[in-house]
Amino acid sequence: MGLAIRYEHIKSCKQTGARLGRVHTPHGVIETPAFMPVGTQATVKTISPEELKQMDAHIILSNTYHLFLRPGHELIRQAGGLHRFMNWDRPILTDSGGFQVFSLSEMRKITEEGVHFRSHLNGDKLFLSPEVAMQVQNALGADIMMAFDECPPYPADHAYAKQSLERTSRWAERCLTSHERPNDQGLFAIIQGGMHEDLRRQSAADLTSMDFPGYAIGGLSVGEPKPLMYEVLDYTVPLMPANKPRYLMGVGSPDALIEGSIRGIDMFDCVLPTRIARNGTVMTSSGRLVIRNARYAEDFMPLDPNCDCYTCKNYTRAYIRHLIKAEETFGIRLTSIHNLHFLLNLMRNVRQAISEDRLLDYRNEFFELYGMNESNRGF
Amino acid sequence: MGLAIRYEHIKSCKQTGARLGRVHTPHGVIETPAFMPVGTQATVKTISPEELKQMDAHIILSNTYHLFLRPGHELIRQAGGLHRFMNWDRPILTDSGGFQVFSLSEMRKITEEGVHFRSHLNGDKLFLSPEVAMQVQNALGADIMMAFDECPPYPADHAYAKQSLERTSRWAERCLTSHERPNDQGLFAIIQGGMHEDLRRQSAADLTSMDFPGYAIGGLSVGEPKPLMYEVLDYTVPLMPANKPRYLMGVGSPDALIEGSIRGIDMFDCVLPTRIARNGTVMTSSGRLVIRNARYAEDFMPLDPNCDCYTCKNYTRAYIRHLIKAEETFGIRLTSIHNLHFLLNLMRNVRQAISEDRLLDYRNEFFELYGMNESNRGF
Repeated sequence: MGLAIRYEHIKSCKQTGARLGRVHTPHGVIETPAFMPVGTQATVKTISPEELKQMDAHIILSNTYHLFLRPGHELIRQAGGLHRFMNWDRPILTDSGGFQVFSLSEMRKITEEGVHFRSHLNGDKLFLSPEVAMQVQNALGADIMMAFDECPPYPADHAYAKQSLERTSRWAERCLTSHERPNDQGLFAIIQGGMHEDLRRQSAADLTSMDFPGYAIGGLSVGEPKPLMYEVLDYTVPLMPANKPRYLMGVGSPDALIEGSIRGIDMFDCVLPTRIARNGTVMTSSGRLVIRNARYAEDFMPLDPNCDCYTCKNYTRAYIRHLIKAEETFGIRLTSIHNLHFLLNLMRNVRQAISEDRLLDYRNEFFELYGMNESNRGF
Repeated sequence: MGLAIRYEHIKSCKQTGARLGRVHTPHGVIETPAFMPVGTQATVKTISPEELKQMDAHIILSNTYHLFLRPGHELIRQAGGLHRFMNWDRPILTDSGGFQVFSLSEMRKITEEGVHFRSHLNGDKLFLSPEVAMQVQNALGADIMMAFDECPPYPADHAYAKQSLERTSRWAERCLTSHERPNDQGLFAIIQGGMHEDLRRQSAADLTSMDFPGYAIGGLSVGEPKPLMYEVLDYTVPLMPANKPRYLMGVGSPDALIEGSIRGIDMFDCVLPTRIARNGTVMTSSGRLVIRNARYAEDFMPLDPNCDCYTCKNYTRAYIRHLIKAEETFGIRLTSIHNLHFLLNLMRNVRQAISEDRLLDYRNEFFELYGMNESNRGF
């Protein structure tokens, strides 16, 4: 166990709890703190692998639930695994399907054995359990796999959250046992416990005793206010082993990436940049910009004059607005490239700031430009 | 007049009426016979300019009607013209809007002055005439502009077709007169006349007397059987000046590109390759392939094993089928790249065959592989 993934600590920030590091995987190195673009259905929507490399993405995430439903993990195994199937030779992380089975599927029934549900695509009766999630992820062959967990809704009362985290711990053990490729794929466990400090403590104790090669924090960014999320991070991160990667699931707004890094998180993922791009909303160094607005109709500036992405080097706001209004997918490709580049560049800046022991200063500079204050960090 | 565009004849094919040449334009040279990908709304759907260059597209076409409606030609003039607006520095041809105004607009009323119609987007009352079409195309700034014509439906009786071509001739003269940038943009006239030889003769005589820098054949590929189209080409092409480019509008099936080249056509355009790509249909050296078919679910071959496009070098049928079924636009991007590459490569082969005086042989080889015979050339 743990042979596939190794965390290398480079340095800690003297201003914050942040750390600079590297996660070594079978398909290469991830510089951390890192943001992972999401390729739900074995593609980062509208973007080619070459474009992802051009914007220096070190790792992408793909969703086990979606691939399990379509095209099916056996097909991807036959194709030689997810890397070959989608033409991406850098690291991949697959989630466990746990979160999606609770948020997307229909008629689900949770038992100790696993979850029975109906496909949201065609109503097929399906079943996911720790063993099946491992079998599926072993077929996909990602560098990092996630243990099958139960993610409680927000808010969840103490009794529900406790029952749920205890089941997640039992399921994590079953995942460890049934994982068949520990030399090729590292399995991360997911700390649950809702917004309850004692439960996060219990979950972390359970899971760290099992010695996974990495740990994630689940059940955050599920609707709670951001200050509450940061509070949970404040007491949960110190419970996570210092010699293993720490992954905050589902987080990707610029402010939360910085705040998470400050608290010692190494890895993040979120659909935010590509999802808002599809509506024509982009992140810029001076805040967000909704390209559909009439004020950009005759604006021949790039999306962000301070950005050096492919989109900003070659296209104007007026052109991109035209494409989005005309429902041309090339417009979405341009806004997606810009938003992903923006977050990947933000993380480069975060790493640079850590190396210079000035992450707090960087945060303040970023927030001032971005037009953020304490009451306005929701992006 | 005629300063912007110059046709250079390289050689004629000894086996057919085909000719190898070059069209010199303000934005570079087009090797002919050439296929022009269509970028209706100032973008070739799903494809970047860099990808078009990678597949060696020499020129693209954009639609005046669509750009007139949205985003408007004045905006594009302000942006510095269509080339700068869409980040494409090679030649562009814009059509006149004539065909679209008849096929797309609502409540149109044709008078000698021009056409009153309602926008298919929002119902706005609009007007296009020879003068307005020139004004719009002068603002767009394409290397090649088309005269505003009336394209009769198929079938059109002799009386209607005659009336229509005579109006097209009068309109062509008005286009010549109102064209304001003859040094920067070449204006091509469109020969009409339906499927009537005497009328094509009359139209060609009218228009060649006016000395345009290039001539197109309009009113074909509008629903008539292909043998009839070839018959019209047989008697119309010889009426066109040998020292000017000859453009067959709206044609882009592989067989018609070869048959048109054989009859002396230099330029073609069609939405076919990108339109069928959006349904997951691709052209291959052994015929068409509908990637949605279940037989390709576990097929790990490229779309066309004989193709060296980006798609075929990197992705399998199984992966592309997955993307198309999952409604991922990256799948459409991959099939669009393949289809455009296929036709551009076909035209490279046609030019090579002309240079070797073996275009008839090439046609027969292509049709045999493609599974075509006299009754099956509809693609």
